[in-house]
Amino acid sequence: MLIAKVVGSVVATQKDEKLENLKLLVLQVQSHENKPKDQYVVAVDSVQAGVGDTVLYATGSSARQTTLTDGRPCDAVVMAVVDSWDIDGANVYEAWA
Amino acid sequence: MLIAKVVGSVVATQKDEKLENLKLLVLQVQSHENKPKDQYVVAVDSVQAGVGDTVLYATGSSARQTTLTDGRPCDAVVMAVVDSWDIDGANVYEAWA
Amino acid sequence: MLIAKVVGSVVATQKDEKLENLKLLVLQVQSHENKPKDQYVVAVDSVQAGVGDTVLYATGSSARQTTLTDGRPCDAVVMAVVDSWDIDGANVYEAWA
Amino acid sequence: MLIAKVVGSVVATQKDEKLENLKLLVLQVQSHENKPKDQYVVAVDSVQAGVGDTVLYATGSSARQTTLTDGRPCDAVVMAVVDSWDIDGANVYEAWA
Amino acid sequence: MLIAKVVGSVVATQKDEKLENLKLLVLQVQSHENKPKDQYVVAVDSVQAGVGDTVLYATGSSARQTTLTDGRPCDAVVMAVVDSWDIDGANVYEAWA
Repeated sequence: MLIAKVVGSVVATQKDEKLENLKLLVLQVQSHENKPKDQYVVAVDSVQAGVGDTVLYATGSSARQTTLTDGRPCDAVVMAVVDSWDIDGANVYEAWA
Repeated sequence: MLIAKVVGSVVATQKDEKLENLKLLVLQVQSHENKPKDQYVVAVDSVQAGVGDTVLYATGSSARQTTLTDGRPCDAVVMAVVDSWDIDGANVYEAWA
Repeated sequence: MLIAKVVGSVVATQKDEKLENLKLLVLQVQSHENKPKDQYVVAVDSVQAGVGDTVLYATGSSARQTTLTDGRPCDAVVMAVVDSWDIDGANVYEAWA
Repeated sequence: MLIAKVVGSVVATQKDEKLENLKLLVLQVQSHENKPKDQYVVAVDSVQAGVGDTVLYATGSSARQTTLTDGRPCDAVVMAVVDSWDIDGANVYEAWA
Repeated sequence: MLIAKVVGSVVATQKDEKLENLKLLVLQVQSHENKPKDQYVVAVDSVQAGVGDTVLYATGSSARQTTLTDGRPCDAVVMAVVDSWDIDGANVYEAWA
């Protein structure tokens, strides 16, 4: 999994029927030091995440292991909102800071 | 998923029988700011997309989850035409703009 | 899928039994403008492709969806010989040109 | 698999129910000469690894082959703590050195 | 698949039970011109390969298609020892040269 920040969302009406009712988020990938990387991904939201949230996302077939995404043509899913993480014992990110 | 622009199509007559009747599109990958990236992919079209359309595509085993691509040797599928997306509350792309 | 040119082949006698009778091709990946990229892959041939042919190959679990590669430890397969492709309405490659 | 060093952990309470009770580690990927690379990943711990441990992790669908991660939306798993490795007959890393 | 040279091996005693009795090799990825690339991977050995051998390895779910690796948390497998390969009709590598 990688850490990312939700920065936007995508609207698409002409799509495969298996994509109906899925919310598509634009994620900016973050480094482990919480710096934005020059990498983005569009992922299905399975945890009611919103713009500004820091999240974890999974890719590949693992992205289809949530109840919401099972059997769907989706290769990236947001499956957790991050509260905090630490590196070498020091806090890097705290959602309520 | 990544955002891409349909820029062309591929013709192939000598191919695995499971690829029959699939339309193969050439996609130019776009950044989340809608700038073309130096990256392309050939993907099966599952949503009647055409040259000039901005689309979403999925890769890997997820590319075989549409009714059209199920069980086929296809590792990339266009499964949505993008209407619009926004970043940090500002519209980046609008299909009818 | 990506476009590649067949540039060689690999011989291996000491191998997993599930690889018996598969032809292993060395592919040079091409850009969508048909320029060679600094990237290669070894792929199983499922369409009688030969050195000099321009082909499409699929990777990952999708590479095991041809009748030939089903259940084999193979992560890349050539599943089409390319006749031609176009970008923005202009022909980029034509097999008989 | 790649070699990595456990440098931290992630806390997330709002998450997919299939992620309950999994420990999420932040891994710093190491080169085969045991130098830190500019690459990290968040992985599920299946072997009671801790900060400072050098470990092996697997990605993709292979990350769901441990008893702990089976059927979970997890694309990276720590499945071994490394004792040592050698390159060209010389020891590169020794856990007890 | 990619071509690689076996340069070492990894010892790990604290590991997932499904990794028992698998030999873990350190591979240095080679270019198609047989130059070492700045890329390595740790792979399970399914063909009795040893340090110095030039091999083919497969990744992802395809790495679990050998009898040895079926159902194991392994994302890379050595499944062939390379005898030789050629590029544009010229021999690049010969095991007995």
